[in-house]
Amino acid sequence: MDYHDNIAALFNPQSVAIVGASATTGKIGNVVFANLLQAGYSGRVYPVNPKSDTILGCPVVRNIAELPEGVDLAVLCIPPAEVAGAVDALGQRGVKAVVVITAGFREVGGDGWFMEEQVKNLANKHGIALLGPNCLGLINTGANLNTTFAVGQPRKGNIAFFSQSGALCVSILDWAQERNLGFSKFISIGNKAVLDESDILAYLAEDPDTKVIIGYVEGVESGQRFLKVARSVTREKPVIMIKSGKTSAGAKAASSHTGAMAGADQAYEAAFAQTGIIRVHALRDLFNLAQAFSHQPLPHGPNVAVVTNSGGPGILAADACELSRLIMASISAPAVEKLKAILPPFAAFYNPVDVIGDAKADRFAGAMEIVLQEENVHSMLVLVSPTARTGVDDVAREIVNVAKRHTKPVFACLMGGPAVAAGRDILLNAGIPCYDFPEPAIKAIEALSRYREWREHSLPVEVCYRRDIGRAKAILQQAREQGLQEIVEFQAHGLLKAYELPIPETRLCRTSDEAIAAARQIGFPVVLKIASPQISHKSDVGGVKVNLKSPEEVQAAFLDITSRAQRLRKEAYIMGCLVQGMVPGGKEVIIGFKRDPQFGPMIIFGLGGIYVEVLKDISCRLAPLSLGDAQAMIREIRSFPLLRGVRGEDAVNFTALEDILLIMSQLSLDFPEIYEAEFNPVLASSKGAWVADVRVILSPD
Amino acid sequence: MDYHDNIAALFNPQSVAIVGASATTGKIGNVVFANLLQAGYSGRVYPVNPKSDTILGCPVVRNIAELPEGVDLAVLCIPPAEVAGAVDALGQRGVKAVVVITAGFREVGGDGWFMEEQVKNLANKHGIALLGPNCLGLINTGANLNTTFAVGQPRKGNIAFFSQSGALCVSILDWAQERNLGFSKFISIGNKAVLDESDILAYLAEDPDTKVIIGYVEGVESGQRFLKVARSVTREKPVIMIKSGKTSAGAKAASSHTGAMAGADQAYEAAFAQTGIIRVHALRDLFNLAQAFSHQPLPHGPNVAVVTNSGGPGILAADACELSRLIMASISAPAVEKLKAILPPFAAFYNPVDVIGDAKADRFAGAMEIVLQEENVHSMLVLVSPTARTGVDDVAREIVNVAKRHTKPVFACLMGGPAVAAGRDILLNAGIPCYDFPEPAIKAIEALSRYREWREHSLPVEVCYRRDIGRAKAILQQAREQGLQEIVEFQAHGLLKAYELPIPETRLCRTSDEAIAAARQIGFPVVLKIASPQISHKSDVGGVKVNLKSPEEVQAAFLDITSRAQRLRKEAYIMGCLVQGMVPGGKEVIIGFKRDPQFGPMIIFGLGGIYVEVLKDISCRLAPLSLGDAQAMIREIRSFPLLRGVRGEDAVNFTALEDILLIMSQLSLDFPEIYEAEFNPVLASSKGAWVADVRVILSPD
Repeated sequence: MDYHDNIAALFNPQSVAIVGASATTGKIGNVVFANLLQAGYSGRVYPVNPKSDTILGCPVVRNIAELPEGVDLAVLCIPPAEVAGAVDALGQRGVKAVVVITAGFREVGGDGWFMEEQVKNLANKHGIALLGPNCLGLINTGANLNTTFAVGQPRKGNIAFFSQSGALCVSILDWAQERNLGFSKFISIGNKAVLDESDILAYLAEDPDTKVIIGYVEGVESGQRFLKVARSVTREKPVIMIKSGKTSAGAKAASSHTGAMAGADQAYEAAFAQTGIIRVHALRDLFNLAQAFSHQPLPHGPNVAVVTNSGGPGILAADACELSRLIMASISAPAVEKLKAILPPFAAFYNPVDVIGDAKADRFAGAMEIVLQEENVHSMLVLVSPTARTGVDDVAREIVNVAKRHTKPVFACLMGGPAVAAGRDILLNAGIPCYDFPEPAIKAIEALSRYREWREHSLPVEVCYRRDIGRAKAILQQAREQGLQEIVEFQAHGLLKAYELPIPETRLCRTSDEAIAAARQIGFPVVLKIASPQISHKSDVGGVKVNLKSPEEVQAAFLDITSRAQRLRKEAYIMGCLVQGMVPGGKEVIIGFKRDPQFGPMIIFGLGGIYVEVLKDISCRLAPLSLGDAQAMIREIRSFPLLRGVRGEDAVNFTALEDILLIMSQLSLDFPEIYEAEFNPVLASSKGAWVADVRVILSPD
Repeated sequence: MDYHDNIAALFNPQSVAIVGASATTGKIGNVVFANLLQAGYSGRVYPVNPKSDTILGCPVVRNIAELPEGVDLAVLCIPPAEVAGAVDALGQRGVKAVVVITAGFREVGGDGWFMEEQVKNLANKHGIALLGPNCLGLINTGANLNTTFAVGQPRKGNIAFFSQSGALCVSILDWAQERNLGFSKFISIGNKAVLDESDILAYLAEDPDTKVIIGYVEGVESGQRFLKVARSVTREKPVIMIKSGKTSAGAKAASSHTGAMAGADQAYEAAFAQTGIIRVHALRDLFNLAQAFSHQPLPHGPNVAVVTNSGGPGILAADACELSRLIMASISAPAVEKLKAILPPFAAFYNPVDVIGDAKADRFAGAMEIVLQEENVHSMLVLVSPTARTGVDDVAREIVNVAKRHTKPVFACLMGGPAVAAGRDILLNAGIPCYDFPEPAIKAIEALSRYREWREHSLPVEVCYRRDIGRAKAILQQAREQGLQEIVEFQAHGLLKAYELPIPETRLCRTSDEAIAAARQIGFPVVLKIASPQISHKSDVGGVKVNLKSPEEVQAAFLDITSRAQRLRKEAYIMGCLVQGMVPGGKEVIIGFKRDPQFGPMIIFGLGGIYVEVLKDISCRLAPLSLGDAQAMIREIRSFPLLRGVRGEDAVNFTALEDILLIMSQLSLDFPEIYEAEFNPVLASSKGAWVADVRVILSPD
């Protein structure tokens, strides 16, 4: 039996044992047990403690061995050294799930690492779904289950929250109180010895009580699995995540915290973008977005209408809108006429619609109704300043009413403190997201709109190219047998051919006469490159000459290249030169991959030369690439206009570049024994794209 | 008498008349008068109303003519059509300052424009310091003066706020209540018919009650004056501003709002950066920063220490820190030892210092004291999660205590809702900025640190280059007399020489023989360019040939250029060709200026070719440039590494480029009759920089 089968028992146990339950107020074993009882859990509970008879009025079980068979969940609040033994004993009693609240494991290093390994192995042996160690516990409001030592019970709702930081959970429970946010599940994942974020995401995807998933992580355990799970979860529900340790200072703090080994942030950025996870970079945004997703439908398009009684904030909203992917909706002429009929002459009838400072609720109501009826408006934001004339509560009630009559998402921003507090409560209780400032409101609407795009976007197109795996394998094997760490162009051509990659016509020539003949057949101008298995950095020995236009130039180049190589690299076996056709008008592009320790192969694209080397203008995606990924990679580099063609040039052949990117992705997944590969340059023109040079670095044995 | 002399009477009047004061509750003339009385204003007050005898218990003056001589301030709450007449009458009674609350002027267009012109002219005639029209009024808490129709009185404090949006003022007063922010002055500037942001800034700079200035504008009235005033104010006090209408959608909304003519946002960005104004892009930041500047001293450096009881938020703070210009301070070995002595073994002793979740106030206090004693720590941020063990109030008190013992700035972040509310009050009352989330706290500390850098930074070095103004003037005059809109290279050389700009050696040659002789003297290779006053886009007619290496190539080029020009531009008077020396290894750079309608000449710098044309990689500053501006402009373009030299190249001569930038700035200010000018290319090498081509576009007459 695998632990995956027991996750349901973790969230919906029929019975719970609290191992280390305590009668002493303030002790964790006491708080946890009290929380469980207070939450109104209706299953059977077994406090386990060798020394007490009853705790909080419940009869005590002396030790694990005395527990009845078939207890679903055990929560451990015992010293770290006793945890492994307890897990083993629980497994023997058939317990399906365990929450280890106890700290002092991997996060403290030393013995902690070993104890955690032990716990993990025992849990896996028994197929126990184990949460923690070093966690706050877990809450399922739907089952009235609270196994945490946090203060207070969260209110019921449709937001599921998971966090790698326990103390953050405490803060968030308290924040949520003030913001009227309700939770379905609340999961402190701690050190992730067994259950990790992927398991939790997979479970929450199926959970009918959960509409929105939000999470805090410092790192991801199994990158490839996370990618797979996340990609499918986001098709069902929005997932909003914050990942800390994104900078070197943060990562340093992160690794001293729970010992998370931070992957490069670029890989995380790619992972979130490719799986449709909404990544936020500030804690506040986690809540602002959760609030919006929790109650509002997704907008059917990017067009926002703003209704305001205050010009300044209206402009700020329009600014924020323009800087986002949203669009300020244009109001139709008939609607403008309707607005003119109900608003004073100095009002603004276009978007933002300014009902001006002396508006009362009825004027707001009229304007909101007209605006929402516009077909071209996909969502509405209402900004309210508490002027002397505004009845903020009445306006709030009208916002609720108008939102009820329509299926479009409606958002509010009540700008003020005490004067708008009651209005805010009216809105939040009715499920209308309410913000303090226009900018975060627009940010939230944008997230909803982008998520809709993600969901509506057809599933990623997986592309598979024909290749001769056997031939490629043989080449790699041969290189390994030769003890090579790197395969140079000359040998790698076989690999390129096995993947049917386009290569400019190339001949290996042993003499200058052969080179001249080859150049004649290929057609001038040509490139000459040194051919030696020992020389990978060809330019360092002057081993490349381009744009050779005549037999004389080819001859001179051949002699120069080979003699120089022999002189500079005495140990090298010089096989001659490669003669290669030149791509007319080609632009140099780099396509490569390197292996990220967390997520596996990360494909890289950039314009060659200084653009990559000096300006670091690259785009990244994790393998496997979809067609859409490849298309996006090419278009998102800053120097993309150069590929599209400037000053009347033709665009390069994008399809040809996409093919090479996708083949690179396939190659990276086919052969884990390749550590890094780089096609550099790839020459792209309007006619196609050719891999003009290649380096392949093998993984250490 | 100028209105500037009367601004003091606006803020500190000995007597106030409320023209249009009303006895009817809810009317603006009633609210304003009631606010004035409620604020406890101790000067004489004169409600003016033709129909009442007493208002709110005060005897009424029937009309302006009956006011005693020498009333300092009048506040107008009367219909727009009556305002001009009232201003004239008030001027005749010797009133020094007027607040026009009435709306219906420039912001509504049509007649409104004319009425506002009238009001402005009459105010100027009488030297009245006039605020508005279309404003909320003004508050001076130090004088118990409140002439607004906002609800509630702000508390006293050291923050001055001015705003172009009236309704925003209302929101902000209400927000401030909740956040415990106190104000010195509160100024709604409305349509800025007379007094504008520059006047207000200049006044507030001298105001002893004001420590921090915050402002909201949609546009700036007089750009050059604003630059001058702002530059000197920020030396005294921090100025934090938000400018809306920064995008085209926002600007559209802005111009329908108060008819502000939005300058290009790039010019505003430059204006704020060059004057040391702290620009924020979201309303929330205005408050977060005001809170920090209001009570805390400036840090003596960028090093921040974070003390936390929650790992996750600690990492988020470290991330935010690294993404800012701040530095996570390193804790010295002796301090780490001291921390180890008082913290449990699983705590983190480096920065962030994690006192872990079960810490009570004493443990926080010990850690904070050790950290603040570190010489290397310039400021401290304390993050508190309300865990079961934390006494948040006690921790808050300890933060206050430790801050009192030190002169370094201390910031707090209490993460939670109801559980931290009391602690937050303790901190805010003691002047410790308290945020909900780590990221805004770091942003605030960064703003303080950057402001310190700005203040400490030596005053901008003004550079003046020798030039022959008379000669330059003559050239421009001649061009104007010839009816030219544009001066081409061939004629503009005189201008370059008048400014002693470095030009590659250049000769005007009428025949190919002359050209060959010139090339021999200059030295090959050379450039040939068509010389004709009618041809400004030389490349369009094939009028430029570069890298000519021999007499033969020069001869061929001469014939080709001149014949082609004659064929393509039959009307042009061809004077021959310019023969110009080439700069070996030079990089092409563009230096130009264009006139911004608000701020005057904006100098532009970029790497030539595709970098400017396709990648839009430019930097901008407003004239006059300081030496520091010129240095920053060169270094802030993305392609700067190419100027610094790649692959072993020498760097270009930065000083030479700085000189040309500074001369361009001087030229732009010397001659308003030049509308745009561009040196393109400027050829820069390690040896120097030369202006290789120039275009000068004249202002329309």
